[in-house]
Amino acid sequence: MSSTDQRFMALALSLAARGLGQVWPNPAVGCVLVKDGRIVGRGWTQPGGRPHAERRALDQAGDAARGATAYVTLEPCAHHGQTPPCAEGLIAAGVTRVVSALTDPDPRVAGKGHAMLRAAGITVTEGLMEAEARALQCGFLSRIERARPWLALKLATSFDGRIATASGESQWITGPEARARVHALRARFDAVMVGGGTARADDPLLTVRGFTPARPPVRIVVASDLDLPRDRLAASLDQAPLWLCHGPNAPAEAQDFWHARGAALIALPRSGTGLDTQALMEALGARGLTRVFCEGGGQFGATLLRAGLVDELIGFTAGLALGADGRPALGDLGLSRLADAPRFTLQELSRIGPDILHRWRRAP
Amino acid sequence: MSSTDQRFMALALSLAARGLGQVWPNPAVGCVLVKDGRIVGRGWTQPGGRPHAERRALDQAGDAARGATAYVTLEPCAHHGQTPPCAEGLIAAGVTRVVSALTDPDPRVAGKGHAMLRAAGITVTEGLMEAEARALQCGFLSRIERARPWLALKLATSFDGRIATASGESQWITGPEARARVHALRARFDAVMVGGGTARADDPLLTVRGFTPARPPVRIVVASDLDLPRDRLAASLDQAPLWLCHGPNAPAEAQDFWHARGAALIALPRSGTGLDTQALMEALGARGLTRVFCEGGGQFGATLLRAGLVDELIGFTAGLALGADGRPALGDLGLSRLADAPRFTLQELSRIGPDILHRWRRAP
Repeated sequence: MSSTDQRFMALALSLAARGLGQVWPNPAVGCVLVKDGRIVGRGWTQPGGRPHAERRALDQAGDAARGATAYVTLEPCAHHGQTPPCAEGLIAAGVTRVVSALTDPDPRVAGKGHAMLRAAGITVTEGLMEAEARALQCGFLSRIERARPWLALKLATSFDGRIATASGESQWITGPEARARVHALRARFDAVMVGGGTARADDPLLTVRGFTPARPPVRIVVASDLDLPRDRLAASLDQAPLWLCHGPNAPAEAQDFWHARGAALIALPRSGTGLDTQALMEALGARGLTRVFCEGGGQFGATLLRAGLVDELIGFTAGLALGADGRPALGDLGLSRLADAPRFTLQELSRIGPDILHRWRRAP
Repeated sequence: MSSTDQRFMALALSLAARGLGQVWPNPAVGCVLVKDGRIVGRGWTQPGGRPHAERRALDQAGDAARGATAYVTLEPCAHHGQTPPCAEGLIAAGVTRVVSALTDPDPRVAGKGHAMLRAAGITVTEGLMEAEARALQCGFLSRIERARPWLALKLATSFDGRIATASGESQWITGPEARARVHALRARFDAVMVGGGTARADDPLLTVRGFTPARPPVRIVVASDLDLPRDRLAASLDQAPLWLCHGPNAPAEAQDFWHARGAALIALPRSGTGLDTQALMEALGARGLTRVFCEGGGQFGATLLRAGLVDELIGFTAGLALGADGRPALGDLGLSRLADAPRFTLQELSRIGPDILHRWRRAP
């Protein structure tokens, strides 16, 4: 592994990131083709999941792919799906070396892609920048390895962890830069999710505003009784899909209303005092979601945290104090000991306008 | 003003910062003497407030001060106090140019220092890096201009703004690096202050640990009835001064107990349901304090915020969630509108061990 290899793989990873939120149920992959030190092709998984990254890079390179090295962020696929396998494509194009970051955990691939390349006489180097690739592919890996999507929980709070005044006023705690970043984040996730309490309190559209992603994220509302404000959500079904997750006793009238307007209804079992969040996440994984961005509210976020389902926390902190009579960002966690608190490791810290952005990942 | 001037003034400011917390009731001043482009003397206000920065720099320079330029972060003093005025010292040493950052607002100086220098034929340039000097001297300026010390409020919280679990467990939310930084911060303030609730719950020593500052910060406990744990605080009176601020009805027995052990007792009027915090801060200013570091608790911090007395917030945020049933970092603020919330402007943002350090100043 040379520093040149690292440089090209870093580029492939940055290309792969362009697909995040746009390619589910497929992984967001990047590919760079290099011949004689020159880049002859670049590709990333296209919105909807295909064409694949390798196909795009090969098409761009044309004849120049012969004798080239391919840098791919994930093992090339080996199975015939809706497109011919990428491993075959690389062989047919005359690529002579493949450097990959990660073996595909999908049982349909799982080393078969690398084996197919080697069988054709191609030199294969595996595992370059694997940690970075795993972090980037956290959603796809979660779906394959844990049968559920990666879950990020966003909290935009005051300095003292509050999301609204006692009277419920919450617009705006953070500045316009942070709010614009939330829309950019939504587009990087397959779905945006809120609990029923937030839907009732804020009646949010949950769409991406300020720009138009190729594929809008799915909107998910989790509301046991489907007791939701209807006008805005129903009127926006042409803008983005709407999935409503409900309990066994949701009224048939409400189910019929949403079904007739094109929303998907996902029935979940109950668990304790609410819906079974484990079943929720598995249902979302079974439908192909790899990355879910939860925007609260406090009760729903706390329920997900208690269930150990939150993989990432994304905090926006503003420089104002709201006091203990303000609304808390998270509901009760029922912790008796500090050692039982869910812990997270800081990944990113920056200023955003007048506010702070901090991202944390669940500590292993 | 050349970039050379800026460079030497920046050095003088960094020297001045060494005195923070050590020099009250005097300002922390820095002085650099430069002759023919070479630094011939450096000084800063010494622990206890004297010798002054100029005196130290002149002593270091000796004969080399003749014909030199003096960079001072504050106008040299012109009055005869316990030491001869620094303006006289600069004149006597033959300094030919003085560059200062700030006119001293102390009515005993207030331009007289600069005038004395000019009258002696010295070229005086005022106001270089004034904004930086004002930020550094915030404590001294506050005491002179507002008759009260600068007040920083520290909050070390979970991701969701909690300082303990429901059962009160709080050790430790932040990591050892953050806790060591708190001790370094204590030494940069003239005094460390807590409310009676924190004193009763944690029985803190409030001393600087891990290293020994030349002058330990005063410890202040604000407890209306002097209802405080006694053993640890009473046993540590040889380590650092202890000032106890109490209400009109504090029992004579308690007053006698603390008086006999050498604690200072400061009687304050009541205001509403607690002590008059405005009177508290004025009493501390009258006793010469310029910088006070308040470490809570939540109720006391909220009272100070409500009174508009908090100039700076120093936050340590750890990557764990404690939930709404955990103890809030701040008590009730009684805000009905978001627009009424006290707002702060971000000054500093950094990682500290696994945690985040963020400093904010009250927005103008």
